[in-house]
Amino acid sequence: MNKEIKWIQSITPSEIRQKAVKVGIGDDAAIIEQEKGMETVIAVDTMVEDIHFTKQTMTLEAIGYKALAVNISDLAAMGAIPLSYLVSIAIPKSGWTEKELSSIYVGMNRLGSRYNMDLIGGDTVSTNDKLVLTVTVIGQIEKDRRLLRTNAKVGDVFFVTGPLGSSAYGLEKLLESGYRKLINAAKLKPFIKAHQEPEPQIDGGRILAGCPFRIALNDVSDGLASEAKEIAEASNVSIEIDWDKVPKLPLIETYPIEKQEEWVLYGGEDFQLVGTVNEVNWESLTNLFEKESLSIFNIGSVTQGNREVQVRNKDGMRLITKTGYDHL
Amino acid sequence: MNKEIKWIQSITPSEIRQKAVKVGIGDDAAIIEQEKGMETVIAVDTMVEDIHFTKQTMTLEAIGYKALAVNISDLAAMGAIPLSYLVSIAIPKSGWTEKELSSIYVGMNRLGSRYNMDLIGGDTVSTNDKLVLTVTVIGQIEKDRRLLRTNAKVGDVFFVTGPLGSSAYGLEKLLESGYRKLINAAKLKPFIKAHQEPEPQIDGGRILAGCPFRIALNDVSDGLASEAKEIAEASNVSIEIDWDKVPKLPLIETYPIEKQEEWVLYGGEDFQLVGTVNEVNWESLTNLFEKESLSIFNIGSVTQGNREVQVRNKDGMRLITKTGYDHL
Repeated sequence: MNKEIKWIQSITPSEIRQKAVKVGIGDDAAIIEQEKGMETVIAVDTMVEDIHFTKQTMTLEAIGYKALAVNISDLAAMGAIPLSYLVSIAIPKSGWTEKELSSIYVGMNRLGSRYNMDLIGGDTVSTNDKLVLTVTVIGQIEKDRRLLRTNAKVGDVFFVTGPLGSSAYGLEKLLESGYRKLINAAKLKPFIKAHQEPEPQIDGGRILAGCPFRIALNDVSDGLASEAKEIAEASNVSIEIDWDKVPKLPLIETYPIEKQEEWVLYGGEDFQLVGTVNEVNWESLTNLFEKESLSIFNIGSVTQGNREVQVRNKDGMRLITKTGYDHL
Repeated sequence: MNKEIKWIQSITPSEIRQKAVKVGIGDDAAIIEQEKGMETVIAVDTMVEDIHFTKQTMTLEAIGYKALAVNISDLAAMGAIPLSYLVSIAIPKSGWTEKELSSIYVGMNRLGSRYNMDLIGGDTVSTNDKLVLTVTVIGQIEKDRRLLRTNAKVGDVFFVTGPLGSSAYGLEKLLESGYRKLINAAKLKPFIKAHQEPEPQIDGGRILAGCPFRIALNDVSDGLASEAKEIAEASNVSIEIDWDKVPKLPLIETYPIEKQEEWVLYGGEDFQLVGTVNEVNWESLTNLFEKESLSIFNIGSVTQGNREVQVRNKDGMRLITKTGYDHL
């Protein structure tokens, strides 16, 4: 048996958790049967070594955990229930041991098992360069529920489900000293966790999917400014953000405003949900979140305009022109 | 608007071809509704620059075409009908123009449109290194049809749907001179096409999926020896291949036997279908293929044994120990 077959056997789960999965890992493709009354939701995300992560800023398990988390977050932003995932990995010819690679899968499985997800397939290839990890995630949602970016309307409340800027602040600290030196810095723990093992907001997404009223929704992967801009573009509206209402952990607020904005507006990778809802439904929505002990914050409003994002703070209103990381 | 948003708009299809696709490209995830009585089939494959392709051996369109073709071939090996695909691309910070990248998507769309497939999502990230292209493909198959590698039984005919070795021979010629110099070498055209733009055997797969009898199936991505070994391992049988019956294009047969074996047994990327069927059903199966003007060849048999692959030629029977490219 060659090493590749052994490797695939080593990552093959011993059982299938979801009854929807009819054929899992080990053949040319996986087969899933859709539950009656549901639709299938699919997303894919790639993480590249030295671009999205380094061994200096991430534990090995966290690399796997996060690669799956960013994908599950896309499901959350559609209001979907996670079901299964496929992993395509391009392995550098040197620099990574099989044990290290296994740890990546352990990290993925740790998160996946929380949602009863199955690893149902993938691809293993070699590369001359850096590790590239591509996760495809499959979920399901009730037929005809649509939490789309195009759903925002003038007058809507603009909301977010939790604090922003934590991941970017955590990354900055990790880049300064590497995670091994920070491990005992208790006050930094929530920020390191936010960067290394972000929490996809599936429960919040499910509440929003269950609402009988119109919701526009996105997850904060590229930064609040960028996500707001995406909704504004898709819905042909503008969005005003009230800086003081945007939730941030207290440590962030001890820094100069320019640094705060860098982390909160442009940092990204917080994987909170942002969206809009008609003002008349805001109270019902907050009640639903409260009932599940989840947070949700009114941080602005949807206005008429030329698909712009503006931020209001004590100095007045300012147009956002930069919208986060540009991959091209 | 930043370059990334413009880029995504440039690759977004103007229409959706499949009514199963409820939400396509442009949101956090795609949504597909499964047709009644069908199941969803999913596979993923990654192609890495300088490992799986180079600009010297591939046209830009062929890079895209092939990335999708290898995935559609996985659907063929399950007997599935192609529906849609997602593309995750890691773009090097230098060395690739936007026009070149667009050509990759043009090549994918050229093949995808033949099967009425929709591009429904993806991810665009940057890398410091080489281009990495990961395609996730979605198809559908009638409920409970299973063309699995585990289905082979002792006494089965071992079959293949077309000539082998063409892609590997084409690659060898391309590596010797680059495709620009070979473009006018008429006798090499079928081999260059086999390497650059292989034909997924969807029609053959659909015939096999429609058969009322047991079929084990694989596609030839890693080479005949490796695919036979996979079936032998999965089904706990051995497989004997009759070298003289294995179809090869005539030019291949003008070379010494060692070279022929290198291309035919170990070359891979032919994307023909290989499988097994009970001997009593062989005639019905060939009739079904003939009726659709498709080829299918009896190239050996399934025997009792220790999950081995043997090749019989004029010098006798020989055990295959090498099983193609090992990615680890």
